[in-house]
Amino acid sequence: MTSSSVSSHVSSPAPSSPRYAAGLAQLARIEGRSPPSLETALADIAPDLARFAIEFAYGDIYARPQLDLAQRQLATSGALAALGNASPQLKFHLAGALQVGCTAEELVELATHMAVYAGFPAAVNTALVLKELFAEKGIALPPKPDAQALEGSRYARGWAGLQAIDGHAGERVIAALGEVAPDLGRYIVEFAFGDVYARPGLSVLSRELVTVAALTALGTAPAQLKVHMHGFMNVGGKREQLVEIVTHTAVYAGFPAAINAALVAKETMAERNLG
Amino acid sequence: MTSSSVSSHVSSPAPSSPRYAAGLAQLARIEGRSPPSLETALADIAPDLARFAIEFAYGDIYARPQLDLAQRQLATSGALAALGNASPQLKFHLAGALQVGCTAEELVELATHMAVYAGFPAAVNTALVLKELFAEKGIALPPKPDAQALEGSRYARGWAGLQAIDGHAGERVIAALGEVAPDLGRYIVEFAFGDVYARPGLSVLSRELVTVAALTALGTAPAQLKVHMHGFMNVGGKREQLVEIVTHTAVYAGFPAAINAALVAKETMAERNLG
Amino acid sequence: MTSSSVSSHVSSPAPSSPRYAAGLAQLARIEGRSPPSLETALADIAPDLARFAIEFAYGDIYARPQLDLAQRQLATSGALAALGNASPQLKFHLAGALQVGCTAEELVELATHMAVYAGFPAAVNTALVLKELFAEKGIALPPKPDAQALEGSRYARGWAGLQAIDGHAGERVIAALGEVAPDLGRYIVEFAFGDVYARPGLSVLSRELVTVAALTALGTAPAQLKVHMHGFMNVGGKREQLVEIVTHTAVYAGFPAAINAALVAKETMAERNLG
Repeated sequence: MTSSSVSSHVSSPAPSSPRYAAGLAQLARIEGRSPPSLETALADIAPDLARFAIEFAYGDIYARPQLDLAQRQLATSGALAALGNASPQLKFHLAGALQVGCTAEELVELATHMAVYAGFPAAVNTALVLKELFAEKGIALPPKPDAQALEGSRYARGWAGLQAIDGHAGERVIAALGEVAPDLGRYIVEFAFGDVYARPGLSVLSRELVTVAALTALGTAPAQLKVHMHGFMNVGGKREQLVEIVTHTAVYAGFPAAINAALVAKETMAERNLG
Repeated sequence: MTSSSVSSHVSSPAPSSPRYAAGLAQLARIEGRSPPSLETALADIAPDLARFAIEFAYGDIYARPQLDLAQRQLATSGALAALGNASPQLKFHLAGALQVGCTAEELVELATHMAVYAGFPAAVNTALVLKELFAEKGIALPPKPDAQALEGSRYARGWAGLQAIDGHAGERVIAALGEVAPDLGRYIVEFAFGDVYARPGLSVLSRELVTVAALTALGTAPAQLKVHMHGFMNVGGKREQLVEIVTHTAVYAGFPAAINAALVAKETMAERNLG
Repeated sequence: MTSSSVSSHVSSPAPSSPRYAAGLAQLARIEGRSPPSLETALADIAPDLARFAIEFAYGDIYARPQLDLAQRQLATSGALAALGNASPQLKFHLAGALQVGCTAEELVELATHMAVYAGFPAAVNTALVLKELFAEKGIALPPKPDAQALEGSRYARGWAGLQAIDGHAGERVIAALGEVAPDLGRYIVEFAFGDVYARPGLSVLSRELVTVAALTALGTAPAQLKVHMHGFMNVGGKREQLVEIVTHTAVYAGFPAAINAALVAKETMAERNLG
């Protein structure tokens, strides 16, 4: 370990378990190439970390049927955009999202949606990653949604959206804020639901999927996570999909974050009598 | 969306709602130029995200009278310094703080103050952003405070400060630590209060404002957030200012963080019989 | 503060308190040089922040006997790897870990271990920092552990490890997940314990030390922190070492994170009747 020692790493033969092979196949669908760049990057520093990513993350998790690859890439992108501390991986997975069929417009909407749950800096930084990515790929930018097409007042539109998506759980949040910070409650209705949720380009189901992944990864707002777990199911999400978003996010934010979110999911199911 | 497609984005006319105009005016006061760089940076990737930032963050929030622009820039800088994951925005808002009248010394103190609430790496990285910013602007650095001017022992000075600022809530924290980690309690008195809070250059009210914004954004320490909400009010902060710091921080850390802090504010007010 | 003002900072004489001298000596052992680079980097922007780091972090904390320097560098590296938002400091402290006697293999294992507690992106980014560091220092990479040497099924090996390390507290987590996300529980057994904890190169005691530091810094999973505080003591860690990991982490993640972890330690001790 002295400074005069020289690198003498002998590359080992590639692992060849069935889990590894399955993971390689999934990763090739996401990255659009093989061998994966992760294997190359870590080969001479932590090859087993690359193997674990391929065997566990891609071989075990991504191969599961509860979510399709496009949904997994949206969940991953939402989690990494919210954490804001892994921009190489965020770029990789936004590219992967395009590769498995997400549209450029969906990803721009995902970035915009993040303003609500992780703040404007997280949203802007995600948009700038997309800008770089689209430039590299020569992707035409999605046409700008016509804001004028949104009818009615922002508050009325937002309140209708909040009721339809989050139901009574969302209404209770606004009511609880009414006694201390009523304007904060109003901004949630007007901005989060009136401006953002009402936009086309990303389905309401995908918005709730992304929100659940982001709040699972952040780990700081279990009460809001439960509201959006209800929201995910209110707009058509299934129990097994919800549990899968949480399981999937273990890869990107660690097991403690996933365990805590799974316990919130359990409470959510009990409240819905789906336990 | 193939790699051979070319960019065909047609720039849309600038939005022109009253909220947008109000936001543009506030942002010009902070950035010291117009049109805002955010609008330019996002024009061909997520123009509506820029519009939302201008309409909602600057038009709705910054225009509110409960905090002045200098206080808002301190709150934003404290939140982003603590999160540590958005350094372009941190630099932008530290520059904005200078633009609206904060002194260079206040910002250096803000960086130093962060060591207590988000750790030394967050503090050092904020100081290095300031170093870059001051070099670009040719700003003379503030004279170094004379540490020798602080009289008495660090512990005695710190204990007096903790009592004056955080009151019984602060004393209870130290007592609770006494049974398990008494030295940690001693360091809070000596370092946080004896060394840092006692420094000139940033008022105690501003220190508590920055602390409330930082802990709201981090979202991981609601008990300490409540101690410092009491602290903010103990040193002269007003109820509506406290609620406004929380509302303001929604822009930088998202609504879930702000909702949780608002509910802590509600408990704080109830304890003070100001509910 | 106008753009035409010029820097007129007059460098002050170096501080010379006994705490400062003690801190300088500790820091020289970690950095392997003197004067410290931190003092130089902050000299003309926030010299007192550098002084506080030297007096408080290195003079007060690092000089304490409850943990040795190698353990402190592992704790620091685990905390910063998990936070993921201070990569210059992460690199500095990984280099410091080598300087005080940690092996290259231990650090690669630390990076790999992070996949479990902070997710794969945090693990991969830490491995890439190590790659850069080892290249700069001409360090030969550790031989790849022979995965085939791990006998038996991943689940059986993992379950035995989980029982030995986390005891009943770990078993209860898996049981609680069984009702909502049984596969997540299975992955914890197979991947976290069967694949990662079973690896040579980083002792189980060091793995629990790193885990406690990481979860203290993240601040988002107090229940899992308690499981691993029990785990640290189950594998031979001492009460005073556990409290010291928490106290040490105040330097890297701030006092609120340390206070909350100290209160979890208090509960842990009470459960073990060591209060």
